[in-house]
Amino acid sequence: MEKHILVTNDDGVLAPGLFALVKEMRQLGKVYVLAPDRNWSGGGHVKTLDRALRVREVRLIDDTPAYASDGAPSDCVALGTLGYFKERIDLVVSGINVGANLGHDVTYSGTVTAAMEAGIAGVPGIAVSLEIPEKHIGEVEFGPAARTTRTIIQRVIENGLPPEILLNVNIPFLRDEEIRGFRLTRQGLRVYHSRLDERIDPRGNPYYWIGGDAPTGVPEPGTDIGALADGFISVTPLQLDLTAYRVLADLNSWQWHEQLYKHFFHFPALLGLKS
Amino acid sequence: MEKHILVTNDDGVLAPGLFALVKEMRQLGKVYVLAPDRNWSGGGHVKTLDRALRVREVRLIDDTPAYASDGAPSDCVALGTLGYFKERIDLVVSGINVGANLGHDVTYSGTVTAAMEAGIAGVPGIAVSLEIPEKHIGEVEFGPAARTTRTIIQRVIENGLPPEILLNVNIPFLRDEEIRGFRLTRQGLRVYHSRLDERIDPRGNPYYWIGGDAPTGVPEPGTDIGALADGFISVTPLQLDLTAYRVLADLNSWQWHEQLYKHFFHFPALLGLKS
Repeated sequence: MEKHILVTNDDGVLAPGLFALVKEMRQLGKVYVLAPDRNWSGGGHVKTLDRALRVREVRLIDDTPAYASDGAPSDCVALGTLGYFKERIDLVVSGINVGANLGHDVTYSGTVTAAMEAGIAGVPGIAVSLEIPEKHIGEVEFGPAARTTRTIIQRVIENGLPPEILLNVNIPFLRDEEIRGFRLTRQGLRVYHSRLDERIDPRGNPYYWIGGDAPTGVPEPGTDIGALADGFISVTPLQLDLTAYRVLADLNSWQWHEQLYKHFFHFPALLGLKS
Repeated sequence: MEKHILVTNDDGVLAPGLFALVKEMRQLGKVYVLAPDRNWSGGGHVKTLDRALRVREVRLIDDTPAYASDGAPSDCVALGTLGYFKERIDLVVSGINVGANLGHDVTYSGTVTAAMEAGIAGVPGIAVSLEIPEKHIGEVEFGPAARTTRTIIQRVIENGLPPEILLNVNIPFLRDEEIRGFRLTRQGLRVYHSRLDERIDPRGNPYYWIGGDAPTGVPEPGTDIGALADGFISVTPLQLDLTAYRVLADLNSWQWHEQLYKHFFHFPALLGLKS
């Protein structure tokens, strides 16, 4: 049965990274495009409930109809999986993002949270980002990264993804022949260099930029950051369950008995059911 | 040394749940209040980089100075931990939210993502939410929940939290004497009942609400949802590492060899370093 693939992104529906992805995804199934009408980078996992969403038809560069919403990337996924197209959606691919989404970026990232929303809707979600040095933004050809993405999506279609799992794919800024292959990775440690930048407006009132240098990361072997640093494509499976299982026992050893409540804090053996 | 506690929320700086929390936190240290100037519920983990943030002084109901920002809860935490107050921040407490944040709510929740931002800044973050049935919103007394929170924060101050860990606390809608105690829990399964609600505006154009009934959940023993259903306060440690370690081996068994790249997909033993 033909796969119905929803393509979205967080750079806006007319971004070239989305168009390159659409062209490749057409070889794998029927493609639906619903993406934000503007850049939502750093916008996080949004569920817009306090206002209605608009959707308008736009045309991609080859005149294909696509849809632009005034919601976040995750809202676009919600619209698509809740039936905007009156068709089931089998798979959500989000990207190709301008810039890598590594380490702690994942909960901020519109690209990755779109894939999270797919996971919550019970559909495989894959986020794809291309590392691009700032000085090269605007001159990048997304075709090779889109072809790489197709090989990954083919594997997802063949194998499925377990429930509650999404993939975070990051592609290094290298020519095809320089890329050393794929690596399955874990989420690494991002190092943010944010600095508060206070300025005074023409009326004498302060305003604040979250400024500072672009984030770097610890290129530890085995991590997404390490893979890119070594010239590999990074594929990180992420889960929607954020429970820190490894600290449950520690927390249980805290002195919880001087409580307002007469029952002591207790650690149910039931927690052992899952890890 | 006196603790410097930043209090924020996602319901807006003047919400009564924040004020109740501030009163209790004053007994544990010096309190700084910096919270959004409006409701940010469902707004996700935001890092506002594309515009400057404004901060204005407001007064809480007892005339205490507090600060309201036009950013998200996570932006407020970024401002605070990056030095807005020219003082170090030792601890971030976010809440008390109107309504529980359970299961998959955590990545959407402004309350929880504020605590995530604290974790990324290397500071313990605690998100606190009070289950409130819709018909009782507006008539709730937050004092008891704030006192409960104080006992939890005392434990955090005594014990610290491991790096990259935050706490997600949910308090059931029960009188103190009905609450059966605390439970350390894992994140449960939310069940969303979202439905797309298409309407036509007075000019004949469609618009879309993400509608449907409020989410429910699977009240499995050991989970946050189960704890509340059983009359317990739920304390769930969450982690910033979303890697799905348990599926790495599965993914490695996929057929990755028909690639664009000459090197095969390989599973570095290095991943075993962490689990």
